[in-house]
Amino acid sequence: MENFNQKEVFATMVRIYYEDTDSGGVVYYANYLKYYERARTEYLRVYNFNQSILKKEKHLVFAVAEINVNYIKPLFLDDVIKVTCAIEKISKTSINFVQKIINQDDIDISSAFCKIVCLNENFKPTKIPDVIADKIV
Amino acid sequence: MENFNQKEVFATMVRIYYEDTDSGGVVYYANYLKYYERARTEYLRVYNFNQSILKKEKHLVFAVAEINVNYIKPLFLDDVIKVTCAIEKISKTSINFVQKIINQDDIDISSAFCKIVCLNENFKPTKIPDVIADKIV
Amino acid sequence: MENFNQKEVFATMVRIYYEDTDSGGVVYYANYLKYYERARTEYLRVYNFNQSILKKEKHLVFAVAEINVNYIKPLFLDDVIKVTCAIEKISKTSINFVQKIINQDDIDISSAFCKIVCLNENFKPTKIPDVIADKIV
Amino acid sequence: MENFNQKEVFATMVRIYYEDTDSGGVVYYANYLKYYERARTEYLRVYNFNQSILKKEKHLVFAVAEINVNYIKPLFLDDVIKVTCAIEKISKTSINFVQKIINQDDIDISSAFCKIVCLNENFKPTKIPDVIADKIV
Repeated sequence: MENFNQKEVFATMVRIYYEDTDSGGVVYYANYLKYYERARTEYLRVYNFNQSILKKEKHLVFAVAEINVNYIKPLFLDDVIKVTCAIEKISKTSINFVQKIINQDDIDISSAFCKIVCLNENFKPTKIPDVIADKIV
Repeated sequence: MENFNQKEVFATMVRIYYEDTDSGGVVYYANYLKYYERARTEYLRVYNFNQSILKKEKHLVFAVAEINVNYIKPLFLDDVIKVTCAIEKISKTSINFVQKIINQDDIDISSAFCKIVCLNENFKPTKIPDVIADKIV
Repeated sequence: MENFNQKEVFATMVRIYYEDTDSGGVVYYANYLKYYERARTEYLRVYNFNQSILKKEKHLVFAVAEINVNYIKPLFLDDVIKVTCAIEKISKTSINFVQKIINQDDIDISSAFCKIVCLNENFKPTKIPDVIADKIV
Repeated sequence: MENFNQKEVFATMVRIYYEDTDSGGVVYYANYLKYYERARTEYLRVYNFNQSILKKEKHLVFAVAEINVNYIKPLFLDDVIKVTCAIEKISKTSINFVQKIINQDDIDISSAFCKIVCLNENFKPTKIPDVIADKIV
């Protein structure tokens, strides 16, 4: 992965393998959500936001509440893509991301909006710990 | 699967297995798109709309152009869900679906909007064959 | 699913969807392991062996220690298969299964051997509770 | 990925994401087959063995005929693993691989044997093109 913009847009590289494709000859539409999540995870890792530690120590998980995906062009076996991630808004209990998938020729492949919510052990929305929110903003 | 409404809403039953869950203890968010697609496929099968034959004989595929998903309540291992599917609109080259996931107590788990587009061999939008469009409407 | 033999071989029906296939035009090889697990889960469910309850109440999980799979014929989109499951041997801490995938014409598609082990919270092999072992044998 | 041995053992690095885990808290057993395939693909890529070109130009695919996997220790969210790949034997129509998954502390996580077969358009075993076989040996 690499920081391909000076500002706040991060990109994670993803290689397309057989596991990603379907018999239509292209990448299966649900798998885009995996790439979008990998990019969000790598984005948050930069801020020392480790989800497995967060779960163990604070019993908090971040869950997706909403995702909207546009599929612009198909992806194929052996393609290499950049998956971008930028924060659009942070509220008390949630974070909104805007994301994109771009191929090696810088062509837009897909775009997405994703809202994640901080949940406690009972799956109720909970205040994002200040130590995290302060870092990210 | 079963037709659980007199009108035009179909439902497919899905059992949740280990493959569907993640270490957050719930069903992984990308997998909802698999259930939504299974329901659309079964819906279309009722109209003798067989995607593998369509691909072989007419070189047409139906691809998702847009999906919006709301995640309302979590799903767990061993849950059994109903995935509904209804057509909202048919245009010359595309079909819009509205869908829902409901648990066994009839609680809403998720809702989705999905637009699929008829594509030719070069992945260009193409007129939906009349024989299909006429049947579905 | 159905019990298609008087003895101890169970079969679970599985429909092949786009999610299961890859761009080779056939079902992706890792997905066979999902079908084999669904069949083992349904087999054990018949004996009231509910893995989510087992985990919550006894902090036990059953994990796969070994799997050997032979791929005999390819599977395609829209195929319907039977996945069989029979117990070959039960030891103090493990259960050995022999399994098969058969298509609708009763042609062998794949065969598998699978050893699952009962693990405690620290992922150490642990005695299978008598109440389970006694039921299964 | 990196060549972590002077000889013929290659390793591909894989990061574990939520998509890889299940509600047992560990990586789902079928997903190991994805990592093993990624490593084989990267191994063969070094020899300019591009599967998508091979399919388009020669109508050949390499399919898995047999895989045996041992699961030694569990894998967790956020783990980083090395997946190794070495050729054990090449015959006229098939290649046998031995593979391993090792964690960052060089602990063995899993081992596998995998036999892949060269198939023609009718899914019949076919001679591996000399240009490939000669390169690999």
